Amino acid sequence: MANWIWYPGDFEIYHGMKQNFDREERGFFWPAYWKIAEFRHSIKFSNKYNLKEDTQFIASAKGLGHVNVKWEPPLGPDGTRPPYPKWIEKKYRFGEIITCPAKEVTIDIIVANMEGLPCVFIEGEVIKSDCSWIVNDYSHDMIPVGYNKDFTRPEQDPMEFKYTSVICEPVAREVVDGGILFDFGKEITAETILRYPKELQELTLCYGESRAEALDVELCYLKQHLMTEGNDELFGAFESDKVYRTKLRAFRYIFIPEGDVAREIELLAEYKYVDFPHRSKFTCSDERVNRIWEVSEETFRLSSGIFFIDGIKRDRWIWSGDAYQSYFINQYLFYDADICKRTILALRGNDPIPQHINTILDYSLYWLISIENYYNMTGDLEFVQMIYPKMESMMQYCSNQLDENGFIYGRPGDWVFVDWADIDKTGTISEEQFLLARSYQAMIAVRKLLGLDSTEYESLFDQLKKNIWKFYWDDAQGAFIDSFSSGKKKVSRHSNIFAVLFDYTTEEETHSILHKVLLNDEISAITTPYFKFYELEIMAKLGQYNYVLENIKSYWGGMLDRGASTFWEEYKPEEPIEQQYGMYGDKYGKSLCHAWGASPIYLIGRYFMGLRPTSIAYETFEIEPDLDSFNEFSCELPVNEGTLRMEYKAKQLTVTTDKEGGTLKIGDQIYPLKKGELFALTT
Amino acid sequence: MANWIWYPGDFEIYHGMKQNFDREERGFFWPAYWKIAEFRHSIKFSNKYNLKEDTQFIASAKGLGHVNVKWEPPLGPDGTRPPYPKWIEKKYRFGEIITCPAKEVTIDIIVANMEGLPCVFIEGEVIKSDCSWIVNDYSHDMIPVGYNKDFTRPEQDPMEFKYTSVICEPVAREVVDGGILFDFGKEITAETILRYPKELQELTLCYGESRAEALDVELCYLKQHLMTEGNDELFGAFESDKVYRTKLRAFRYIFIPEGDVAREIELLAEYKYVDFPHRSKFTCSDERVNRIWEVSEETFRLSSGIFFIDGIKRDRWIWSGDAYQSYFINQYLFYDADICKRTILALRGNDPIPQHINTILDYSLYWLISIENYYNMTGDLEFVQMIYPKMESMMQYCSNQLDENGFIYGRPGDWVFVDWADIDKTGTISEEQFLLARSYQAMIAVRKLLGLDSTEYESLFDQLKKNIWKFYWDDAQGAFIDSFSSGKKKVSRHSNIFAVLFDYTTEEETHSILHKVLLNDEISAITTPYFKFYELEIMAKLGQYNYVLENIKSYWGGMLDRGASTFWEEYKPEEPIEQQYGMYGDKYGKSLCHAWGASPIYLIGRYFMGLRPTSIAYETFEIEPDLDSFNEFSCELPVNEGTLRMEYKAKQLTVTTDKEGGTLKIGDQIYPLKKGELFALTT
Repeated sequence: MANWIWYPGDFEIYHGMKQNFDREERGFFWPAYWKIAEFRHSIKFSNKYNLKEDTQFIASAKGLGHVNVKWEPPLGPDGTRPPYPKWIEKKYRFGEIITCPAKEVTIDIIVANMEGLPCVFIEGEVIKSDCSWIVNDYSHDMIPVGYNKDFTRPEQDPMEFKYTSVICEPVAREVVDGGILFDFGKEITAETILRYPKELQELTLCYGESRAEALDVELCYLKQHLMTEGNDELFGAFESDKVYRTKLRAFRYIFIPEGDVAREIELLAEYKYVDFPHRSKFTCSDERVNRIWEVSEETFRLSSGIFFIDGIKRDRWIWSGDAYQSYFINQYLFYDADICKRTILALRGNDPIPQHINTILDYSLYWLISIENYYNMTGDLEFVQMIYPKMESMMQYCSNQLDENGFIYGRPGDWVFVDWADIDKTGTISEEQFLLARSYQAMIAVRKLLGLDSTEYESLFDQLKKNIWKFYWDDAQGAFIDSFSSGKKKVSRHSNIFAVLFDYTTEEETHSILHKVLLNDEISAITTPYFKFYELEIMAKLGQYNYVLENIKSYWGGMLDRGASTFWEEYKPEEPIEQQYGMYGDKYGKSLCHAWGASPIYLIGRYFMGLRPTSIAYETFEIEPDLDSFNEFSCELPVNEGTLRMEYKAKQLTVTTDKEGGTLKIGDQIYPLKKGELFALTT
Repeated sequence: MANWIWYPGDFEIYHGMKQNFDREERGFFWPAYWKIAEFRHSIKFSNKYNLKEDTQFIASAKGLGHVNVKWEPPLGPDGTRPPYPKWIEKKYRFGEIITCPAKEVTIDIIVANMEGLPCVFIEGEVIKSDCSWIVNDYSHDMIPVGYNKDFTRPEQDPMEFKYTSVICEPVAREVVDGGILFDFGKEITAETILRYPKELQELTLCYGESRAEALDVELCYLKQHLMTEGNDELFGAFESDKVYRTKLRAFRYIFIPEGDVAREIELLAEYKYVDFPHRSKFTCSDERVNRIWEVSEETFRLSSGIFFIDGIKRDRWIWSGDAYQSYFINQYLFYDADICKRTILALRGNDPIPQHINTILDYSLYWLISIENYYNMTGDLEFVQMIYPKMESMMQYCSNQLDENGFIYGRPGDWVFVDWADIDKTGTISEEQFLLARSYQAMIAVRKLLGLDSTEYESLFDQLKKNIWKFYWDDAQGAFIDSFSSGKKKVSRHSNIFAVLFDYTTEEETHSILHKVLLNDEISAITTPYFKFYELEIMAKLGQYNYVLENIKSYWGGMLDRGASTFWEEYKPEEPIEQQYGMYGDKYGKSLCHAWGASPIYLIGRYFMGLRPTSIAYETFEIEPDLDSFNEFSCELPVNEGTLRMEYKAKQLTVTTDKEGGTLKIGDQIYPLKKGELFALTT
């Protein structure tokens, strides 16, 4: 099989640029406000073949260039090689059949592209584009090419990522204020198609993730006024005299205030999505939890395309902190390695590093940790080898902003984010130190894996942990404080969550954090599903299944009660309904389909169902279901390429898996699972 | 006046990429084989206005984005500013009329462009795009925008550089071997236009800078086989059913072997050029010299477009060493500052520096020196301030490859070029050290100009000069050797030329070099017009006018004798005619219109006419004509914005200039020139 090949990382940088330029708001675009990595416009591929007989090939390219085939000239009559010419070489056009002689040939392919991604596809019996090719941009040594399994045919264009699409009709039409509200029944990311039966007429498309938003003609976030001619082509175009197609937008509702026109036209939506595998199922005796799983899956599928993005209406950007959570959810839903790789590469961009990923200090650290996590999930050594130089330079970049205690601080221009929360961000803060410590662990793990010395990072890790305890642990409060330099000794949930999440605390410290922070209502509550993820994860780790389940049901259930059919960027139960869609000072600024809202998938899969790998890529794995939270449940979960099926009903637990290496743990009992055999147990 | 504005340097990087991708050879493209600098795809412009009354503006952009207008909210009732919101802001689309209130406003413009150069044009009475705007790519502080005087209207597209064009008809048709040879009378850079009176028919366009090349259907360098359909659109396209237009190519002749078809069609060429000002004229009593001036001017005009390129058929690339000479010729022909700035910016690309300019060590050094030269010619402090950070980082880049003697060496991947000549390139070579010394002088001059301390470079310069003499001066041969580490003590003309050119030698050393190297036939002759430039310049400096004139007449005249109507990349008088167009192992590989062939313009203007600035930008200047070489001459030469006219006939010299500050020097006599007054002298 042949692949389209490119400079490694540049496919992801190219599409990452496209993705990060795609945000739309009220008739204008809003490209991401950080340094966008540039793909290379001019590169050179190379390979060597020792041909035993003549062979033919054709190179197709996106861009300008040529193919150069060369070999060493024959030995002279005295048996030595004459000094000149060094090579016998011949250049060819793209698209022509090239016959390569039975020699030791070097093939170079030169491609440059002003507007897009330079890339090549080579068809031939022996000579073809695959992972044996190397490439450079003329400024470094040759390195292995980039490629992926989606682009394997010469007629494809790697600049167009292929989505599955389906035409959706509105499920309901409703006359409101003289206009018509179209409801597509569920949120979709779609191009809107308008068919005018007779002559064109002006109309306005008011989109809404919520009914309220679509009906708010003035303030809805996405809106397009369509004229009979002279529409801005960036937002869509006429496909024919009578058919107009808009750009891709996320919505459930469309309101057209011009009722007379709306009654005449046919309105359709072409929903576009990546058809990720359906690897997981979960149902239980609690219908509310079942609905939360369903809506989480819906939310996550919508937010997962070529990359893991934050939300589908807004920002549509690739954010490292959001992606970090998506990697975990993915592990329990799609188990798709490719979207992880694409997202990791797009986020990272090029060396030298111009600024923290998304400008956010914590997001660079999450990126580092994600490499170890990715390897643990997939065992994909090829990718880790490829990305490691960028991991090392990222660590180096971060290490340029350490103080005398080894604490990482934000420089001017760095965003020390953590969460939308009232954290005391004076000086160096404990949250970032925990992430840094975890990043050192990722470096240690990956360096060991690659056979590199890791002692430097081990001593950095030890020293950092010592200093965290020295400066941030507050005995009086029995918890970590945010900042020691402000003197406020403020305790937030966030750093204490990290400490437990990363297994850094003693039993005694954990106990203290649990009671003095996590179960303490005087400590400000987490308001984002983003940090709820980590908070509930550690509560589950600490065996607080009831707490976690109640929280899932009340917090995510609370969104359902407010009509959510996907989960939101932020939810504050106390917020009045008329403000519930607002954020960033914008009445409809909140994203109502936000990837980080999908964490119940992970929490249920990892803790309630209790599935976890016990070695790399699930070569061995353990399943330790919680049999107290639900009277009955049924699930399917991915264990790498295999599947685990479990059913619990009337105290009867049955487990099957088509993968070797599993063990079931119930209380103190361990039961090995055999591939293909049903295991049953009455509890 | 408003300008299109962009990230400074990116207009030149964008067009530089286009230029460096434009090389064509026998039906394929050959993008330049060095690291191509990337223009930024996403940037943000900003400006502040303190508006006394409401004002309107419109922003047009190439790319996606929006306009953000913001101001601080009013003071609270207690006279203080509330902490939130920090700004009152409103976003607008491109193309809409924006009314800005009478406040202290900050305007940000966000633009991103996947395919091309993000840039903006702002029209308004008060608010408009000019040099007061600042810009960043989100990774650095804001810096002043880039702009130029060619893009000042909203309907323009900065991605299309505007050329003057003229339709040319062939001046002769000749039947050869059943085909037809079209002669356009002179070399041009043109799109070929084919008009088919009846139905389309297949034909082949064989181009030639020379007649021989066009007639060589197999081996001509540029060739296109035109089919009736399915032609490769990269090379041209049908404008209508019957009219096909090719891409731009350089040629004088076109041969169409299909005579029957050629007889039917109409063949035209649309010659495209930048109409640089005609600032210079020169004629004298020697017709051969007049012709050399004419052909030099023709050569130079053809090679000067948006950038100074090397040659017009091949490579069409921007080479720093070639450009360095063009800056000097330009000073005596167009006196165009803009093409210098464009070329300097395109060559330099971005920080961090990935490799030497064009991969060539000497070419980075020429680039450094060119900044001082540019300032001396123009006095353009704005540009020097803008480019200085890139000058500093280039010097820093070079200083990373110095040995213990302070000598610069080539690292693996660096091309130590100097010239196509047999130079002993073992270890560090003297040629590069002279260029490094001259670069230190450029740093000293520019740092002084900017009020920066220059002592570091002064001591580097002194130390380097000492070491050059210690290691490279060979007393026995009375000359500098190329390499001291090889033990060969080989003397080439090149380093000795640099030593004298840069005024580094004592009178005694100069005398020795003159006789033992320059006038010594045993030292290999210079074979390129490139180094002939420097060789003849120092001979002229040393007063060897007769030698220089004879050389010009024999070397450049030799090309004329071989039918040249533009000057060549290389000329070896001893080379047989059948090989005269070959280079790089290619029968027609030689460029017959090569910028560095135009140096007689400079040699005549600077030495025979004797015009030189004696202070920055010709605020004062001296004219010291050589009255012995020609019986009579007449010239016009630019002195910055002014012109110097001189006539010499029957021992009568008349000089006029419309610029203050001139002095005429004849022998030991100095005569001040008055603006607008004719000065006459009988010698």
